[in-house]
Amino acid sequence: MSDIVFLNNKYFKFKEAKISIEDRGFQFSDSVYEVVAVLNKKILDFDFHIRRLKYSTSELKFNYKVNNNFIKNIFQTLIKRNKLNNGIIYLQITRGVQSREHVYTKKLIPNVIIYTAKKKFNLPNKNYKGVKAITYPDIRWGRPDIKTTSLLANIIAATEASKKFAYEAILVKGKKITEAAHSNVWIVKDNNIITHPANKEILKGVTRTVLINIIKSLRFKLIEKEFSIKALFKADEVFITSSASFVTPVIQIDNVKINNKKIGKITKSLALNLYKSIN
Amino acid sequence: MSDIVFLNNKYFKFKEAKISIEDRGFQFSDSVYEVVAVLNKKILDFDFHIRRLKYSTSELKFNYKVNNNFIKNIFQTLIKRNKLNNGIIYLQITRGVQSREHVYTKKLIPNVIIYTAKKKFNLPNKNYKGVKAITYPDIRWGRPDIKTTSLLANIIAATEASKKFAYEAILVKGKKITEAAHSNVWIVKDNNIITHPANKEILKGVTRTVLINIIKSLRFKLIEKEFSIKALFKADEVFITSSASFVTPVIQIDNVKINNKKIGKITKSLALNLYKSIN
Repeated sequence: MSDIVFLNNKYFKFKEAKISIEDRGFQFSDSVYEVVAVLNKKILDFDFHIRRLKYSTSELKFNYKVNNNFIKNIFQTLIKRNKLNNGIIYLQITRGVQSREHVYTKKLIPNVIIYTAKKKFNLPNKNYKGVKAITYPDIRWGRPDIKTTSLLANIIAATEASKKFAYEAILVKGKKITEAAHSNVWIVKDNNIITHPANKEILKGVTRTVLINIIKSLRFKLIEKEFSIKALFKADEVFITSSASFVTPVIQIDNVKINNKKIGKITKSLALNLYKSIN
Repeated sequence: MSDIVFLNNKYFKFKEAKISIEDRGFQFSDSVYEVVAVLNKKILDFDFHIRRLKYSTSELKFNYKVNNNFIKNIFQTLIKRNKLNNGIIYLQITRGVQSREHVYTKKLIPNVIIYTAKKKFNLPNKNYKGVKAITYPDIRWGRPDIKTTSLLANIIAATEASKKFAYEAILVKGKKITEAAHSNVWIVKDNNIITHPANKEILKGVTRTVLINIIKSLRFKLIEKEFSIKALFKADEVFITSSASFVTPVIQIDNVKINNKKIGKITKSLALNLYKSIN
């Protein structure tokens, strides 16, 4: 929770930033969002987030033209006013307010909400840690590639993980792994780095995109392909990526130890190189 | 939109009824709802709606105890204060407000929103009409049996229908029909009345339940079983049911005429009997 919130061209105190009960984001999850990391006051991967935001609003046919400079100014203002050093910027755009009806009308005016939250990141320094994950059925809707607030399946999976003292829930569709409740999943096997292809079955993570470029520049072998739950458990290393998790090692899944509960070498190397690329 | 809205134990003017931007219903579609019909000031099927509301809140593990009398009193107050003769009552309950995070914490205080809207119903009188529908892929999440606001797939389908001047979108999963974007689907073939079984693939409509009792009392032959898109197009009659649509005949699907675009005899009979049962 932050002190100051941007809401439709005005800045409000958090408690005063409220939305209509007939906002379509509230009644139909008719809205999209982005979570952007801020490290030492620096906004990370802004252009990638904006590109994805454009994809989300365009796929849902929102009456909204994303303006890079407009959004960047708000981000910078909020970082300053909320004295944010390390944390995230949360941005949500809804289709707008309309008398409740499934069918949306054209030319609604989108609601734009932007605020910040402090957060400690799991960075590859002396406190770098591996986490536990669970596996959970992937029961999300058919378009997880759009970053929408239709997140019930994700929060149920994430809460189930939390109950088992795990950090993430890795989603299983049939016999294959798609991604996790709030991150992308990667496995390392025989020095190959494997992750699900960026198609309509997963959200194309910004950190995923950034890391792929790093992997290529380091000449590691990358394979974007589907992999099974069996391959997950038999992996040499497993890690997850997201804008708020960076590269986080997974050292246990359900009751199975991964890499004997140690952070893998390739994982650590990727985390370090990602961190280096930021600074 | 109604004049007076109930929001967390108080009545507000519509424009003043607003919710927090960190309400989980808004950020995660972590909320459930009901739409209840009001005909000549009379609340229809109250007990069935309450039973389903209990199912929804319990499946999502909301920290909320549904109190029948409490809700009935609010419904009656709103009908009176908003001078509602014919229309609907919209009720939405969210898990509550929490600093944004996928994992929900226990003991959140749910937000309860209730308001009314005027509506003309398609009743079996001289203005009774058949409607057009389209078919559309069912890309909803894995738990449509819970009445949640995770409705993006539904609104996309419904809007696609509207663009084609159709009233509803009938959802197709693989080769079979599940239900429609905001109603249950029924077909009549050789005097058998067929509808999808009430399992986790469809929402168990209140009007569906009421109508099943009527069908049984009239000794029509009812079969609750899955049916294909082929069976849909070849049906003698097709109709949809919902709390706001009652029994509405479908006389065209995509470019296919059903029953030569006439309202079927069994459909009309069921609509009349449902209407009779209300009065």
